[in-house]
Amino acid sequence: MAQKIVLAIDIGGSLTKIGLVNENGKILEKRVFKTNAQDPFKIFVEKLKSEIKILTAGMDSTHKLISIGIGAPNANSLTGNIENPPNLNWGPLTPISKVIGEMFKLPVVLTNDANAAALGEMKFGTAKGMKNFVVLTLGTGLGSGIISEGRLLIGEHAMAGEIGHVNVNPNGRRCNCGLRGCLETYASVTGIRRTVFELIAEMSEDSPLRKISFEDMTGEHISDAALAGDTIAIMAFNKTGEILGGKMADSVAHLDPEAFILSGGLSKAGDILLNPIKKFMELRLFSAYKGKVKVLTSNTTSSDAVLGPAALAWSAFEKHTL
Amino acid sequence: MAQKIVLAIDIGGSLTKIGLVNENGKILEKRVFKTNAQDPFKIFVEKLKSEIKILTAGMDSTHKLISIGIGAPNANSLTGNIENPPNLNWGPLTPISKVIGEMFKLPVVLTNDANAAALGEMKFGTAKGMKNFVVLTLGTGLGSGIISEGRLLIGEHAMAGEIGHVNVNPNGRRCNCGLRGCLETYASVTGIRRTVFELIAEMSEDSPLRKISFEDMTGEHISDAALAGDTIAIMAFNKTGEILGGKMADSVAHLDPEAFILSGGLSKAGDILLNPIKKFMELRLFSAYKGKVKVLTSNTTSSDAVLGPAALAWSAFEKHTL
Repeated sequence: MAQKIVLAIDIGGSLTKIGLVNENGKILEKRVFKTNAQDPFKIFVEKLKSEIKILTAGMDSTHKLISIGIGAPNANSLTGNIENPPNLNWGPLTPISKVIGEMFKLPVVLTNDANAAALGEMKFGTAKGMKNFVVLTLGTGLGSGIISEGRLLIGEHAMAGEIGHVNVNPNGRRCNCGLRGCLETYASVTGIRRTVFELIAEMSEDSPLRKISFEDMTGEHISDAALAGDTIAIMAFNKTGEILGGKMADSVAHLDPEAFILSGGLSKAGDILLNPIKKFMELRLFSAYKGKVKVLTSNTTSSDAVLGPAALAWSAFEKHTL
Repeated sequence: MAQKIVLAIDIGGSLTKIGLVNENGKILEKRVFKTNAQDPFKIFVEKLKSEIKILTAGMDSTHKLISIGIGAPNANSLTGNIENPPNLNWGPLTPISKVIGEMFKLPVVLTNDANAAALGEMKFGTAKGMKNFVVLTLGTGLGSGIISEGRLLIGEHAMAGEIGHVNVNPNGRRCNCGLRGCLETYASVTGIRRTVFELIAEMSEDSPLRKISFEDMTGEHISDAALAGDTIAIMAFNKTGEILGGKMADSVAHLDPEAFILSGGLSKAGDILLNPIKKFMELRLFSAYKGKVKVLTSNTTSSDAVLGPAALAWSAFEKHTL
């Protein structure tokens, strides 16, 4: 019998990653191409089609493609559409599941990128065997996916898990979403850059970070400086950990998870970020939760991004064949 | 065939309510007695036994008792125990499900009072037909029960839904739980009293509330004064609504519910509380949720408290007979 595999598609604002993944999370083939988000959807679909053709060219009768999983920003799992994506010039409503399903005559499942990441962590990653956990993706923004009793928390309008937009301070930093003081304006790569610039403005200490412009500064610049003992960088990580840890304590008061799994660029900083997060989360936890909630980092890398949509495709397939 | 009924037990810090409830939420018999929380558990059990005897004295063969549901503070649904209740002098661990199950030779299900209230609202109350909602009980403290996809959110340690302990301000009011600035120190009957006393201290306006001591002041005193146009009382409701509405927006960013159902003493204030809550929740909602989340008040009264544990007993029975 042919080995079953799924096609996984991870659509990002800059790169789209596609892969063929088996049930054990082994990526048999993968490709990466530019999303070219400023072009219309039609052009993306043509590019995707030709890339998938190359990806599947080597497939023979020993493999059978059974379904397609897609992770994308602003994806609605109930409708199968991408809705009002701020970083894709595709218009207000893109019926991506329908278009790709008709193209390949296969079942398509769609969810937003952070939800896909949570499913990927549960099936193939750090959260294997866990039933209640929260994935926080700390990249340009802060995405989140919540798993409760082994299932993705969906919500009434398929929009559960926007922890990046809980409020730190109603008069705080302006967020792209139109609100002020959203968590992602503090706890993300962009957020810690903003904190570094605030500290540079406030303080007079020397710092290698004073030589780098806002646009050029990466998370690595800040973590490298912190590891080398730079006061401003260390303060920036402490401040970020205090804010994020405090808000994670609030998430615990809703969800009572076993663990948080941190992924994305900022999570690569390791202990210089994890230590203040753990300290402040623990400090702010309601007594019933103290000492019970783990904070872990994902063991996947950005090249594994297809594992999220692959897990989605597998879980949908398993649901249908139960 | 005999009509099936359940025995519902609502244990509170001051009163315990018991009732016989049919599948439609009709309370056939009910009784209320003092919990006498300072006495040991053994004395409570004896009292409960004799009260249940009176409650069921009129039952004949046309009714069949099939199970028992218990709602209690600090109840753990996984273990069947009441754990470290601050308001019951029963010691650190009371195996209430076991004791009552053995006494009546019937299946017993236990959950905390706010979770029971959420189940009651779903089966018999304001949330009938809803799949995703949050119940907030605004009494002495702030309890919460979360329903997600038609099921009670339990969490890893059976402690999900402690929204009363999300943080408003890390340097804020002292909470009984040991933390500072917990939501329930602002948004509860006790919380609004604290706000009134802060405002009395800050302001110089006349107010009928200046004549009442902290211990004597009830939620009704404050809502009566607000309805009569008292500045301090109105400000207290606005401030409470701003804080609670803002935190409800954070809950939405986790759970994406269809509605919040407010119950308990403070919810009886009606629009003077609901209007600022709705205004500030809406203001702080992430764009994807704006205009989509209802804020409702429970249509049950405190004498209906047995409907929560009754719904729990019915849902456990239905699960076993599916």
